Amino acid sequence: MTSLPKQVRLVEVSPRDGLQNEKRPVAIEDRLRLIDDLGAAGLRYIEAGSFVSPQWVPQMAGSDELFARLSRRPGITYAALTPNMRGFEAALAAGIEEVAVFAAASESFSQKNINCSIAESLDRFAPVIEAAGQHGIRVRGYVSCVLGCPYEGEIRPQQVMPVARDLYQAGCYEVSLGDTIGVGTAGTTRRLFETVAREVPRAQLAGHFHDTYGQALANIYASLLEDIAVFDSSVAGLGGCPYASGASGNVASEDVLYLLDGLGVETGIDLDRLIQAGVRICNVLGRDNGSRVARARLASSTPACS
Amino acid sequence: MTSLPKQVRLVEVSPRDGLQNEKRPVAIEDRLRLIDDLGAAGLRYIEAGSFVSPQWVPQMAGSDELFARLSRRPGITYAALTPNMRGFEAALAAGIEEVAVFAAASESFSQKNINCSIAESLDRFAPVIEAAGQHGIRVRGYVSCVLGCPYEGEIRPQQVMPVARDLYQAGCYEVSLGDTIGVGTAGTTRRLFETVAREVPRAQLAGHFHDTYGQALANIYASLLEDIAVFDSSVAGLGGCPYASGASGNVASEDVLYLLDGLGVETGIDLDRLIQAGVRICNVLGRDNGSRVARARLASSTPACS
Repeated sequence: MTSLPKQVRLVEVSPRDGLQNEKRPVAIEDRLRLIDDLGAAGLRYIEAGSFVSPQWVPQMAGSDELFARLSRRPGITYAALTPNMRGFEAALAAGIEEVAVFAAASESFSQKNINCSIAESLDRFAPVIEAAGQHGIRVRGYVSCVLGCPYEGEIRPQQVMPVARDLYQAGCYEVSLGDTIGVGTAGTTRRLFETVAREVPRAQLAGHFHDTYGQALANIYASLLEDIAVFDSSVAGLGGCPYASGASGNVASEDVLYLLDGLGVETGIDLDRLIQAGVRICNVLGRDNGSRVARARLASSTPACS
Repeated sequence: MTSLPKQVRLVEVSPRDGLQNEKRPVAIEDRLRLIDDLGAAGLRYIEAGSFVSPQWVPQMAGSDELFARLSRRPGITYAALTPNMRGFEAALAAGIEEVAVFAAASESFSQKNINCSIAESLDRFAPVIEAAGQHGIRVRGYVSCVLGCPYEGEIRPQQVMPVARDLYQAGCYEVSLGDTIGVGTAGTTRRLFETVAREVPRAQLAGHFHDTYGQALANIYASLLEDIAVFDSSVAGLGGCPYASGASGNVASEDVLYLLDGLGVETGIDLDRLIQAGVRICNVLGRDNGSRVARARLASSTPACS
């Protein structure tokens, strides 16, 4: 049988990537409760907020207050997105220990999303990464649209590789490859990691899969076969796809955990507590739970003739 | 890179397994329209009905009339479930060319579902299979609960193997292994096929996955890696899980096809037409579409900042 990683780290993005893409802004108390529930479930990396202008991303307003009030559990990294130096300085003032920056594999997406080219975006992050290094703050890099772009269509692995390499060489300790519109499948996923791994060690790569086309878990399994051992996910699948309203987005952490548990891969995460965290935040948001595992567990068990 | 089957056959079960498990019975005209839409999409095997007592399964009432009125497209097999000799004789009278029988890997499930042991159920099907053979009618075998049972919990591959073997040796040309409650994961799926394939050739095995825990596509990809090339699925994911109301059931054909297309595996099926078939039947049923691919395609595309 094939060999798989013995351990996998899950990077929980619901408090940032998840809530950022939900329609209803959430009170800081509920954001803090979510973060605490996630820590109680055993997650060790939680993307807790984002230092961006509240005009652009109102759901992330108050991230400075959130970090000030955060009850930090030992052994957990609470990270924040910092798209520019101003955001980084705010994060620094808030006592952040880890930040994240992002670039796109698609020029069109870069222009439409942050109004600059890929090269310009990397130039913009260079001082952030350097300043972070000077303060002993780790930086995680994200690449968007690694398997497809809403504007350009297909994205080749050769377009992703230089961006991932540049982020890594600039000082990001890990680069998360994001299938932003969820169009990737198991084969293209494997070819992507195989290609990018020529420039960035597999141990420094992560997969960020969206389940818009239902492919996320198959893509994660394919990634495990490529020896990738870090995956981003969002409890209850929070965070719809920003490019197609009504379509699903982030892969649900519970569903990923169920797969990993079934494969015998260690994560240190408790599925029941994770489900509880998701149920609670879905109640706050007034939305359906996007995790199939959660829904299956919650559904009434009524034995019946098949 | 790993080798995958070059072609895969999809066995479409929505008109039987799908509709049977929907709450609202559907008029024969709409069942016929669904079957025709599926054929137009390129499906070559359609489980169109079931010859069982209408008292047990009211949604399948009128299967004899349905087959009489069916516009058969050339090259397509229209099959029906025949749980006993009485059902088989009705199917024969209706001009069926292929039938299906089923047994369980779990004794408890067999007892609770059809009021007899596994061995008794096989004895019950033996005359059906023999009579079918005498009439030149092919028989497909199903095994339920191959990766878990709602009553017994875990099911070992060693429990599945003898049942699959018995069906095969009795004369079933193909045996479909069904994860009835959707609890299987990629590793247990691969071990299952590896074990059963010691007794039944891989070319005669199929996978019938439920997506109750979101694992179906990962399980299908895992099965492809085990050289399995036949999968059962249901357009729009029709047919909820009969054991947990509200949980999902059959894997959506559109989502499976998207995976296979992405992998470059030939199926002869047109995704757009398949989506149309699913949309139409969901409108008739007044239910949400269970296919993520269909929902993604139907969702409005609104580029927005991420």
